Amino acid sequence: MKKILLVGSGNVATHFAKNIDNKNYCINQVFSRNKENAKKLIEFLGCNWTNNPKKILKSDITIISVNDDSIKNVIKFLPNIPTVHTSGCTGIDILKKFNDYGVLYPLQTFKKNVEINIKEVPFLIETNSKKFENDLFQLANNLSEIVRVTDSKTRKKIHLAAVFACNFTNHMLVLAKKICDESNNDFSLLLPLIKKTFNQINENPIKLQTGPAFREDLGVIEEHLKIIEDKNLKKIYNFLSQNIIQTKNENI
Amino acid sequence: MKKILLVGSGNVATHFAKNIDNKNYCINQVFSRNKENAKKLIEFLGCNWTNNPKKILKSDITIISVNDDSIKNVIKFLPNIPTVHTSGCTGIDILKKFNDYGVLYPLQTFKKNVEINIKEVPFLIETNSKKFENDLFQLANNLSEIVRVTDSKTRKKIHLAAVFACNFTNHMLVLAKKICDESNNDFSLLLPLIKKTFNQINENPIKLQTGPAFREDLGVIEEHLKIIEDKNLKKIYNFLSQNIIQTKNENI
Repeated sequence: MKKILLVGSGNVATHFAKNIDNKNYCINQVFSRNKENAKKLIEFLGCNWTNNPKKILKSDITIISVNDDSIKNVIKFLPNIPTVHTSGCTGIDILKKFNDYGVLYPLQTFKKNVEINIKEVPFLIETNSKKFENDLFQLANNLSEIVRVTDSKTRKKIHLAAVFACNFTNHMLVLAKKICDESNNDFSLLLPLIKKTFNQINENPIKLQTGPAFREDLGVIEEHLKIIEDKNLKKIYNFLSQNIIQTKNENI
Repeated sequence: MKKILLVGSGNVATHFAKNIDNKNYCINQVFSRNKENAKKLIEFLGCNWTNNPKKILKSDITIISVNDDSIKNVIKFLPNIPTVHTSGCTGIDILKKFNDYGVLYPLQTFKKNVEINIKEVPFLIETNSKKFENDLFQLANNLSEIVRVTDSKTRKKIHLAAVFACNFTNHMLVLAKKICDESNNDFSLLLPLIKKTFNQINENPIKLQTGPAFREDLGVIEEHLKIIEDKNLKKIYNFLSQNIIQTKNENI
């Protein structure tokens, strides 16, 4: 049984803790700034919590799951045991003060209260040694069926692609809802369209593109621009429409 | 049995024709510019085709399903029978030369070769008279279980929202794939993330937003901007990230 020191209590930390196999691993302690944020998690786990570096318990591995900006600060307080972070964007080298270190990046979107089947989440791992790679592979494989070894540069590119595939797509839905709300239309009318758009996603989304920009139906684009009042929304509409046309022509 | 003159042979026209209930309606004739484009459709329907206005057969209703830019041109050739178009963006008035006219807009994305359950597609209809509304409602209801009466202004707003919800989201996936391709990563690694992002969509996508911009993790945003080489992609990344932050702050 390996004891884990979990640093952070956010979306990713919560899903890790809830899904780790209790036969081989246990969350020994949660180390985080704010007890209130960690409350539900430590109640669920029934484990120790601290925000005091002097009270960190002896564990076998540290998993750092905090904002990228905070990793550098938090490692000052951590003991020299095998340590990994879970960021898609921060390189492995930030952890080089430890003897064994690595990255355990889950390629997925996590919200504390939204259930997830972690077995289907691809984990991208990286380590500073072959020996530690075996340990980390085992840990990742305990969580998920899909584990890939990738270097920091590659992982950063995949993370960038993930921002487009997840956050930016979701933002388009946020904007669609805003347009519906402002014109007193029911966003749920769009749900069959959204469902269809994403159920059909295959290896090549460009083959599925439709709409005024893809048809280069400039009259419709002009009509749409006329009815958008918000300056930034107009800018997004215009720029994405131009980019769809350009991408289409690059792919012909 | 009502006879339909179908104008156009594109994505929408094809799905209409394939899904219309043959007991009460039949596609009597397809009127389109190019026989080659209409070939599969007329073979499937086993009906007459023409591109010669003089050879248009007598029918009961005309459904115009062509690019918005082409509607104005095509109506010059059409007989004065009840006539509808299927556009989300073009107003009803373009058809005012007919005695009975209206709009039959399916709020969905259509590709000729991608199957669809048309029963679940919301149809937004509009007519110039109550009497014709009943007829058109019947026709729409024959195709789908979800039929709403909406005016041209409302429909245009919904159509605009649909461009964000479908075409722009899909374009984000096209860009995600481009980033994967250019860095020799496998786009299919992102499929569980994409699936999750859209399976969880509910009434309020902003509650599901995650990622560097939503966390205002400016270090990650800066790192991403550094590794994007394409000028337009950089512009899209930057602008959407700023807009996510702004939208978040408006909603707090």
